[in-house]
Amino acid sequence: MSNLRKTKLGVFGFGCVGQGLYNVLSHSKGIKAEIHKICIKNASKKRTLPEHYFTLDKNELLYNDEIDVIVELIDDPVAAFDIVKTALENGKAVVTANKKMLADNFEELFRIQQASNVPLLYEASSCGCIPIIRNLEEYYDNDQLNAVEGIFNGSTNYILTKIFRENVSFETALSEAQVNGFAESDPSLDIEGFDAKYKLGIILAHSFGLFVKPEQLFNYGITRINDFDANYAREKGYKIKLIAFCRKVGSTIAAGVLPQFISPESKLFGIDYEYNAVMVESIFSEYQYFVGKGAGSNPTGSAVLSDISALTYNYKYEYKKYQLHEDLRVSNDFYIHLYIRYNPSQPLPLDIFREIHEQYVSNNNAYVIGSVHFGRLIASGIAQREDVNIITAADPHIQNASAVAGKPEKELAAL
Amino acid sequence: MSNLRKTKLGVFGFGCVGQGLYNVLSHSKGIKAEIHKICIKNASKKRTLPEHYFTLDKNELLYNDEIDVIVELIDDPVAAFDIVKTALENGKAVVTANKKMLADNFEELFRIQQASNVPLLYEASSCGCIPIIRNLEEYYDNDQLNAVEGIFNGSTNYILTKIFRENVSFETALSEAQVNGFAESDPSLDIEGFDAKYKLGIILAHSFGLFVKPEQLFNYGITRINDFDANYAREKGYKIKLIAFCRKVGSTIAAGVLPQFISPESKLFGIDYEYNAVMVESIFSEYQYFVGKGAGSNPTGSAVLSDISALTYNYKYEYKKYQLHEDLRVSNDFYIHLYIRYNPSQPLPLDIFREIHEQYVSNNNAYVIGSVHFGRLIASGIAQREDVNIITAADPHIQNASAVAGKPEKELAAL
Repeated sequence: MSNLRKTKLGVFGFGCVGQGLYNVLSHSKGIKAEIHKICIKNASKKRTLPEHYFTLDKNELLYNDEIDVIVELIDDPVAAFDIVKTALENGKAVVTANKKMLADNFEELFRIQQASNVPLLYEASSCGCIPIIRNLEEYYDNDQLNAVEGIFNGSTNYILTKIFRENVSFETALSEAQVNGFAESDPSLDIEGFDAKYKLGIILAHSFGLFVKPEQLFNYGITRINDFDANYAREKGYKIKLIAFCRKVGSTIAAGVLPQFISPESKLFGIDYEYNAVMVESIFSEYQYFVGKGAGSNPTGSAVLSDISALTYNYKYEYKKYQLHEDLRVSNDFYIHLYIRYNPSQPLPLDIFREIHEQYVSNNNAYVIGSVHFGRLIASGIAQREDVNIITAADPHIQNASAVAGKPEKELAAL
Repeated sequence: MSNLRKTKLGVFGFGCVGQGLYNVLSHSKGIKAEIHKICIKNASKKRTLPEHYFTLDKNELLYNDEIDVIVELIDDPVAAFDIVKTALENGKAVVTANKKMLADNFEELFRIQQASNVPLLYEASSCGCIPIIRNLEEYYDNDQLNAVEGIFNGSTNYILTKIFRENVSFETALSEAQVNGFAESDPSLDIEGFDAKYKLGIILAHSFGLFVKPEQLFNYGITRINDFDANYAREKGYKIKLIAFCRKVGSTIAAGVLPQFISPESKLFGIDYEYNAVMVESIFSEYQYFVGKGAGSNPTGSAVLSDISALTYNYKYEYKKYQLHEDLRVSNDFYIHLYIRYNPSQPLPLDIFREIHEQYVSNNNAYVIGSVHFGRLIASGIAQREDVNIITAADPHIQNASAVAGKPEKELAAL
């Protein structure tokens, strides 16, 4: 695209992020880009821009020679995939913020992008305005990563912060998050950990070169946290936060989304409300983290604009970690320290534990803390039990299963 | 430079960072680069690499057609400038970690770089392995920044952490920092705030488009912190950290380096030991920060390698904020909330204060807390007084002087 004239944008969707993009763009001094046309679904909604911007016909954008870049900001992941695919195949650069669409179709989109050789950028899809994708691609490309983990979802962090800092109930915290625009009207994607899992999938490709379907990754949300769990955390001086993680143990990448006890020594302890944090652990840079707003109209609009800006010099992700073809695979064959709380009338199958560090039983609540085989945990069906809650220990101590095979630890006597 | 063969590096200096670069490079899987020749000053030092790598003749690197990139990692800023200038003028890309050399010659280097159109990269010069320059250039290029500030010097943070977390003396903390390689053998650049100021100068160019000589910026170190100051901080629950800041107030950029009281609510409170943190405040992304190791052989070597990697696609800084030609200037015509401790036998000139919030006098120590005109403070010579220590208040509350002109606040009655 020429640097002499303004880049013309065809934008799909004019909700929270679309309006944020318009707002950020109209206040930005450096960038030569303008919104040319916006495709919307609902013609009757009141709009803040003149009518000539809007159309209901996607082809007016996708097949418009004047439009250089398609910016995809709609909710529907199926329609979004169709838009992005068509745009790439027709040689139009694409910027998208749609994590579910990306996560569901990641490998196929990657193939289409490689075949078309047209940029497909999506910084806003992962952790709002934290530039994690670009930094993984450009800055950590030659470092050997050990782990990327953190708070990838602003809504759940807002809710958990309200619970732990302000002692409000889960329901009150959730409805406040919705009023403040940090949670969707259907909050299950957030509170069940799916949203964080989609972002984890995107980050896995850029940190370890792996394309993984969301179904391959385990996610466990925050809805089962009850007063017993919260009090346990408070007594220890912990907070609970929803953590997405991927960590290299041998040639295994251990990955998932789970609530975790966070001790005051953790860098994540102070990351509250709608903030996200991404920690990058590598051999040479050692330990770094990035903190910023994970949601909101202007922060996300700003992330979208940064991608549009990168397109002016034809920036493309190079998927450098993928190109290395390292022998890594996501697998649940690892051990992790977990707290599993349950109703003592329904015993836990203790064979998922490699070692047990603590056991507690009272009339209504029991818990076991120990080193759990992640794959056996998932296979056991415990995660589906209504009486159970699973929280990662403050020190997850993730271990490659084959590395510790044949090294049994002394177990506590059963209670 | 061709992508088909390995990039050949001519490295000046083989100290801490040079050896870190060699170490990182030899473990990195993705990058096609190798050290071709290393220019050293001292031929008699034992080296960890075979002899054929080394030379004492800089021209063997600078005029070697096989060498694609000059990597400048020496201590001497004058010799470094000569090397970098010659390399650029001869069309060789340069990577440097030398903040003093950059800060002293920044505008001239910028002109030479623009004229030669050869890349000059220096991520490792500012805050170790935190990718702040690249993010300011590429990610915040279209956002309007309000402020960039933080802990830019790992040695002083290490020393202050030892003092506040472990109650050790300044001298013990300093010598421990030196043993651990976080402080130079001549620590005055660190502890007097010069090192942080050089980095601030570099960051000013990439955040506000301003080239500022170090002499134009005020720096005040941590050596005057005595038990009285430390106890004052402890009683309030504060820590003290050395903070470099630049903040837009109207068309004025308020900038400098000063110790500051840090309250537990601050995002910087938990950034301890050799870690650095850079906070970026902008209109649209709102509030973000980056945390990482600010010093050390491998983290800095890793930052150098990231620049070398960016050269494989001919990456250059675009100095986008400079190209905007905004009407901004660094000026000391602003007010800031300060704590000034002094010996009561030598009164303070109170006319530097716009308003006074607290005054305290005892036999040996006195302090005033209030809103100080920064330019008048510097002109007063108070900063040179041996009995004085100056610490920024936990809320610096920086105000443009002309914006508050004619709005006097009620002052406390003099004690």
